[in-house]
Amino acid sequence: MSNSTMLKNKTLAIIATDGFEQSELLEPKRELETRGAKTHIISINGNESIRAWDQKDWGKTVSVDIQIEDANIADYDAVILPGGQMNPDILRTDKKVVAFIKSASAQDNIKAIAAICHGPWLLVEADLVKGKHVTSYPSIQTDLKNAGAHWQDKTVVIDGKLLTSRNPDDIPNFIEAICQKLTS
Amino acid sequence: MSNSTMLKNKTLAIIATDGFEQSELLEPKRELETRGAKTHIISINGNESIRAWDQKDWGKTVSVDIQIEDANIADYDAVILPGGQMNPDILRTDKKVVAFIKSASAQDNIKAIAAICHGPWLLVEADLVKGKHVTSYPSIQTDLKNAGAHWQDKTVVIDGKLLTSRNPDDIPNFIEAICQKLTS
Repeated sequence: MSNSTMLKNKTLAIIATDGFEQSELLEPKRELETRGAKTHIISINGNESIRAWDQKDWGKTVSVDIQIEDANIADYDAVILPGGQMNPDILRTDKKVVAFIKSASAQDNIKAIAAICHGPWLLVEADLVKGKHVTSYPSIQTDLKNAGAHWQDKTVVIDGKLLTSRNPDDIPNFIEAICQKLTS
Repeated sequence: MSNSTMLKNKTLAIIATDGFEQSELLEPKRELETRGAKTHIISINGNESIRAWDQKDWGKTVSVDIQIEDANIADYDAVILPGGQMNPDILRTDKKVVAFIKSASAQDNIKAIAAICHGPWLLVEADLVKGKHVTSYPSIQTDLKNAGAHWQDKTVVIDGKLLTSRNPDDIPNFIEAICQKLTS
């Protein structure tokens, strides 16, 4: 199977709002599209575009494809949750986002719920980490442990559908792990 | 007792780093100094100054008075923890900060550990909220509940030394509660 078609017919839900860490959305999006996947950037509050956070300041503006209330979990093969400190902090207060992520864990069509950096806060909010092995940006490890997770300091941790990474340096391994989940 | 001397001989430790919510540090600092208190802004990583976050973007730059490793808990009457999404997320990874806050709970000279907005994440990290009544910015309520706290949606919640508020709108009540703790 050629690299450019290995994810043909796969559609990926990327949930984000202002303050997402730029590399953690744009790099997986670009690389997974290069391998044939479609991606939808899903946001909240009627946002037509969202602003990235690029390490120390605001970064690029990215177009939103669909609002969370119009997104149907049955249309997707995986859910991707970028980090950034602000982005998941805002998203976790949106009941539709939390319900969407929660339903992803129960849907057979969803092969991976992939969260990187501060993204795993959303897994805490959806109550998906109890008894699960996960990683995250180190600052939120206490929140994951208090939610019942077994936290590990590894580039990628996979437990069932949950796939987690720590920071932008882990992005290449994060992408490979998503691909493997989608094609295995 | 006149307003301008009611906090005479009281010294307040304000712990912060880049990304603190501007109003949540500057307003309590100014108002408590007006009532006679001394304040020390304590930071980490050798920061000589720190940058505020002002609602939607970077705000003012504020001078740091002392580094956390040089701060002595015995010198203070209260500890104040401003919010902002980035500030406590960075501070909670600093072991000296967490140890300082933890020791504040055991020191008789400390009358209040006051945290606002996202500041209560530091109380989670210092393991001070188990069985305690607290409030916070709503986005982090799950983290406080998972740490064992009884979370309430109130402008100020006081439980023992812990004094917590939700957001910048609560600042006047937050300041009054700190004053009451220091003078009762």
